[in-house]
Amino acid sequence: MTVARDEVADRLRNLQEGICRSFEGLDGVSRFRSDRWTRPEGGGGDTRILQGDGPVEKAAVNWSAVWGPTPDRLSDSLAAGSSSFYATGLSIIVHPRNPYAPTFHANLRYFETDRGERWFGGGADLTPHYLFEEDARHFHRTLAEVCSRHPVGDYPAWKKACDDYFYLPHRGERRGVGGVFFDHLPATHPVWEMVYDLGTALTDLYLPILHRRIGLDYTEREVRWQLHRRARYAEFNLIWDRGTRFGLETGGRTESILASLPPRATWVYGFEPEPGSPEDELQALLRGEPRSWL
Amino acid sequence: MTVARDEVADRLRNLQEGICRSFEGLDGVSRFRSDRWTRPEGGGGDTRILQGDGPVEKAAVNWSAVWGPTPDRLSDSLAAGSSSFYATGLSIIVHPRNPYAPTFHANLRYFETDRGERWFGGGADLTPHYLFEEDARHFHRTLAEVCSRHPVGDYPAWKKACDDYFYLPHRGERRGVGGVFFDHLPATHPVWEMVYDLGTALTDLYLPILHRRIGLDYTEREVRWQLHRRARYAEFNLIWDRGTRFGLETGGRTESILASLPPRATWVYGFEPEPGSPEDELQALLRGEPRSWL
Repeated sequence: MTVARDEVADRLRNLQEGICRSFEGLDGVSRFRSDRWTRPEGGGGDTRILQGDGPVEKAAVNWSAVWGPTPDRLSDSLAAGSSSFYATGLSIIVHPRNPYAPTFHANLRYFETDRGERWFGGGADLTPHYLFEEDARHFHRTLAEVCSRHPVGDYPAWKKACDDYFYLPHRGERRGVGGVFFDHLPATHPVWEMVYDLGTALTDLYLPILHRRIGLDYTEREVRWQLHRRARYAEFNLIWDRGTRFGLETGGRTESILASLPPRATWVYGFEPEPGSPEDELQALLRGEPRSWL
Repeated sequence: MTVARDEVADRLRNLQEGICRSFEGLDGVSRFRSDRWTRPEGGGGDTRILQGDGPVEKAAVNWSAVWGPTPDRLSDSLAAGSSSFYATGLSIIVHPRNPYAPTFHANLRYFETDRGERWFGGGADLTPHYLFEEDARHFHRTLAEVCSRHPVGDYPAWKKACDDYFYLPHRGERRGVGGVFFDHLPATHPVWEMVYDLGTALTDLYLPILHRRIGLDYTEREVRWQLHRRARYAEFNLIWDRGTRFGLETGGRTESILASLPPRATWVYGFEPEPGSPEDELQALLRGEPRSWL
């Protein structure tokens, strides 16, 4: 028995609702606004954005379910030769205001074509501006636990795939401390159970970290570093992220795709952290070999 | 008799010097700093950056002359099949602080391969955040005059090429009010004279505009719009600009290539100017058909 795509779409939609509530609860000040949109060729989505003055500077929790003729530029080899596709997904990005609080990203997606390809992809990763080892450990431990609950889970492989994927070749840096990344998993029930379980774990993954960091005092110095690191985040998403490029090249909804971009960023030529500083420690971490966090 | 590449490199270097002096004179506060670098495979450059508290928020005037084995990813068809190349160029970007002052970009470049291809490329374009028709007219008129002084000059074709090139498909917007853009012009003496003449005209092209705008009063509203438009500038350079992508993909000097990025930028979801406002007027201009400015 195959996974029903409508069930996937519906349950991802429910996850969206719960995740938005959780972030609103933590923020305490601002609310998500919902932008529902339809796609002329088929389907549509609900882009939920929180942009406020509270602890969450910008968050996007986007759901969509789209279908229709396979776009010409659908470069993914699995879709080559198909004439129609269906895709549903949930993507989450949080840019907290406090420079000590890390940026969070997660994505769950399902894809099928009329040629019978049916697969899941997804992942979650953490991008700190300052290293708190306990945060990275909590994040990875929680992900490893989700994986271990499912026979199809493979934390070591997906941890490595995440380190490999979120890499900026032009900077010789990884984007952050990673997490998990998987793609093209056959759309069986056990895989869907794992994907959904990951979805329900996203708030456990990130909210405790946010709670610990959003109250820390900071100065202009930390903000400068945060905005510098956010520019790197923008570089990754605009230059290297396959999902972003695919979306833009196939005529996806630009504002939804680029909702992941940081609310503020700065490009200062030749910006280098002070040797031995916490900023330097973070940079060295991103430039060194990936670490184990378990 | 062919154009001597060393002469091209030397004279572009001299132009760099003069252009930096001119911008320093206008700014009155800050100085360019020079970062000289060498390229392991051959050649190097001088990246000059001004980042200060005066009217020029960030400017880069970059010169380079590089050579060596043709990089694998040299996608330009003119270099396909060559085993070595030589390239020298000068690129200029100015991000003024005042939101009423437009961003300026120009580039002059020479390229040759061991297979005998030898060509020039270049151009100049203007990116206002607010439309002042007299600025756009001055800019285009000056460019048309440079072109008209040279039998090889073709303002109408290069104006159109510029409108076509500086276009953001994912936004349905041009980057600014254009200018001229040309590429793959055979490296004859008449072409080199035109390119060099354009180089000497760059300050006439832009400084009068800057002088008129840097003293205008502005508020937070204009800054918000400026930072929004600068994010579009970053999107163009990181997603679509062939030179940027080529440089990053072939292992160019990242800090020099990305010196063009705005000092500050903001991504606000769903940001739309007030209907009928000056911001709306500018956006409509960028989304409409290219205009004639002569």
